[in-house]
Amino acid sequence: MSVADELIANNRAFAEATPYSSLDVKPTRQLTIVTCMDSRIDTFQVLGLRHGEAHILRNAGGVITNDVIRSLAISQRLLDTTEVMLIHHTDCGMQQLTDDGFRADLQEATGVAPAFAIESFDDPVADVRQSILRVRRSDFVLHNDRVRGFVYDVDTHLLQEVEVDEGATGS
Amino acid sequence: MSVADELIANNRAFAEATPYSSLDVKPTRQLTIVTCMDSRIDTFQVLGLRHGEAHILRNAGGVITNDVIRSLAISQRLLDTTEVMLIHHTDCGMQQLTDDGFRADLQEATGVAPAFAIESFDDPVADVRQSILRVRRSDFVLHNDRVRGFVYDVDTHLLQEVEVDEGATGS
Repeated sequence: MSVADELIANNRAFAEATPYSSLDVKPTRQLTIVTCMDSRIDTFQVLGLRHGEAHILRNAGGVITNDVIRSLAISQRLLDTTEVMLIHHTDCGMQQLTDDGFRADLQEATGVAPAFAIESFDDPVADVRQSILRVRRSDFVLHNDRVRGFVYDVDTHLLQEVEVDEGATGS
Repeated sequence: MSVADELIANNRAFAEATPYSSLDVKPTRQLTIVTCMDSRIDTFQVLGLRHGEAHILRNAGGVITNDVIRSLAISQRLLDTTEVMLIHHTDCGMQQLTDDGFRADLQEATGVAPAFAIESFDDPVADVRQSILRVRRSDFVLHNDRVRGFVYDVDTHLLQEVEVDEGATGS
């Protein structure tokens, strides 16, 4: 049995135990969370969220890419969210990479260098600041003044807020 | 108190109630899940996942963009995952959009048309097929033959697998 087959069986048990619901496509708390793909962040659990409350965007690093801007534009302009929480975390895989190194690895393995940035970073605090600035400065995000940034400690499970000065360089 | 402040308080209570942990950055089940930002999918709960087991990627639609390819490349080549589950869902906000319409809306609101596709779709089953093909045909994804696609029903909470014929057009 593959891992996927196990999760399909888990889902069947969950569906049988859970009443039919008819929640709206628009999140009730009008919030979008952007965080890393890291396996140690169960976003609903660590923030006390329930089904129907917030959009969740996740990628490698929790960084603000064009795909996140696309998603935030849809979240806010179509589905009426107004607030953004950006969450990076300690012990992130992105801290083990450099853009130059990983691009060279991809080129060596496939023959082709990717047409996108890797978005590696050393310091999650500095990168949260960069991410906040990218959201604030995007016209596609409707409420780009309502964004706050955090670093989540995957061992203590505690969020720490990161302040940003609009004039700062992010480092 | 803003919604973010409430979630920060929720997180403090969660951290106090949860023992210190030291899970590895590499997911133990060597799996990556790609799904939509939709608020009605608590990925951990609906699949019976626990902390440390799988990477989670989420964007508007759960579609395969360059950002998802970037993240899958890092997940598989740096952090040793080998399997991908793609999960679209019923009643998706992306079904309420067209690329032309939303691009025109963005241009009207901001003066600028975005330099990226909106990735709207009508039929989540057809779009899962497209997403499977995009992963299969990407050299940057190391195990691009180990990908399965699903549609999640947000009312019944049940996953349905979507089969794809490699020669299919996806519609």
